[in-house]
Amino acid sequence: MEIIRSVAEMQRWSLSHRLGGRKVGLVPTMGYLHQGHLSLVQALRPACDVVVVSIFVNPIQFGPNEDFDRYPRDEARDLALLEGAGVDAAFIPTVSEMYPPGFQTHVEVEKLPQHLCGLKRPGHFRGVATVVLKLFTACIPQFAAFGAKDFQQLEVIRRMVRDLNMPIVIVEGATVREDDGLAMSSRNAMLSPDERQRATSLIRALTKARDMVQQGESDALALRQAMAQILSDAEAKVDYIAIFDPMDFSELEAVEGQAHAAIAAFIGKTRLIDNMRLK
Amino acid sequence: MEIIRSVAEMQRWSLSHRLGGRKVGLVPTMGYLHQGHLSLVQALRPACDVVVVSIFVNPIQFGPNEDFDRYPRDEARDLALLEGAGVDAAFIPTVSEMYPPGFQTHVEVEKLPQHLCGLKRPGHFRGVATVVLKLFTACIPQFAAFGAKDFQQLEVIRRMVRDLNMPIVIVEGATVREDDGLAMSSRNAMLSPDERQRATSLIRALTKARDMVQQGESDALALRQAMAQILSDAEAKVDYIAIFDPMDFSELEAVEGQAHAAIAAFIGKTRLIDNMRLK
Repeated sequence: MEIIRSVAEMQRWSLSHRLGGRKVGLVPTMGYLHQGHLSLVQALRPACDVVVVSIFVNPIQFGPNEDFDRYPRDEARDLALLEGAGVDAAFIPTVSEMYPPGFQTHVEVEKLPQHLCGLKRPGHFRGVATVVLKLFTACIPQFAAFGAKDFQQLEVIRRMVRDLNMPIVIVEGATVREDDGLAMSSRNAMLSPDERQRATSLIRALTKARDMVQQGESDALALRQAMAQILSDAEAKVDYIAIFDPMDFSELEAVEGQAHAAIAAFIGKTRLIDNMRLK
Repeated sequence: MEIIRSVAEMQRWSLSHRLGGRKVGLVPTMGYLHQGHLSLVQALRPACDVVVVSIFVNPIQFGPNEDFDRYPRDEARDLALLEGAGVDAAFIPTVSEMYPPGFQTHVEVEKLPQHLCGLKRPGHFRGVATVVLKLFTACIPQFAAFGAKDFQQLEVIRRMVRDLNMPIVIVEGATVREDDGLAMSSRNAMLSPDERQRATSLIRALTKARDMVQQGESDALALRQAMAQILSDAEAKVDYIAIFDPMDFSELEAVEGQAHAAIAAFIGKTRLIDNMRLK
């Protein structure tokens, strides 16, 4: 596996594969890899001849009071996992390689982020869109995979790619879960054993909402109240609970057509998110 | 010459040339072509095997009270000029091809536009950066040429390309002038015969400033006053007169190191710009 730390070298590597007629896939990550990331590598395998995984904890997608400093990092462990998964290249740029002095250009998707995490984390999706565009221009992939756990991120990236006519196919990877249902996330490493137990409240609340819908409940307020009760019982501090239209992220009062539920909640100091299709 | 109107077809055309080992050059224009545009085609010839000229009057770079509707358009004339210049493809998308329903993504260079035209035309360079990025992803060039008349635009594009690590070489084309010095511009077509005479006041003012500097004047206020007098004598309505550092566009009080002068002025209803290196 190649370990590449500069944008110029990454571009050379990728272009040489593309000129050789090979399809290049990219899995952008912030490292501290888990099975969710590795499943994205597998999701690209059928379409791609070579797969690059990028590891970059992107400072510009974190707010000033968020967990950039606490975010877990372990490059040696990540590289071993990627080797084991048969990944062809790891792209691991420094912050100054990605954002050199004088850097002043950002990409912004404007409407989709005016909901859910975008409202709670101002500037977050601007940072995400900017870094993903830069990872795309550095790695020059034909395919890129993103996990469904970060559902709003996935839709923001899809929108950006379409709006900017980038010739890249976005592949969606299903959320990978622990045995008890907790969505895999690098942030799970920050949970104490007690918090780890309480963290299952997110998936339990989402499952409850889906079950209620299957049993005929359509009132979004009733669904949100049932979810809030489960989170409250686990001493989770709700950032948002939303029942929304997955096309435009607008809040729904009643579940009739397509509907999605999403939760962001703090378990201790750690902010977790999860989501589920209701209908 | 190929005439291409869809992004997908443009990408296919360009990629097939690139896969064939040929270098692709792009000259982005808003049409109503003149010798300045054609000189950009020539500037790309040494480096490029095929040259695309795009023609697109980009609505999102015009303010609500600007001249989008008045901007001159003549596709048949443009195509004849491009054929004559040996251009390989003309990319002529519609507004809805470039900005389909739901479009909501913009690219913004943040500091450079806080001067000169960027201050006078809020959102202008955001529209320019967005459309140029889209023309780059549509035409997938290795080289792209921009004219030095639009000096701030050239620097904004250079900054964007560097910040987003786009593997595209930006080629600067010198300002092409009429016999009496007026910088060539599609907007010159909007001038009445009387206005056309008065429009030479921009280059006369810039030349005066450069001559004063060569004779030892370094006070920016004195330079600006001399320029303002020439513009006033021609009944030009000044939008700005600036003596600035070409590195960051900051205003200078004294001309010591690198210095540039720029003017934006209305001749009648038509806003013209021009600029010159002083030192």
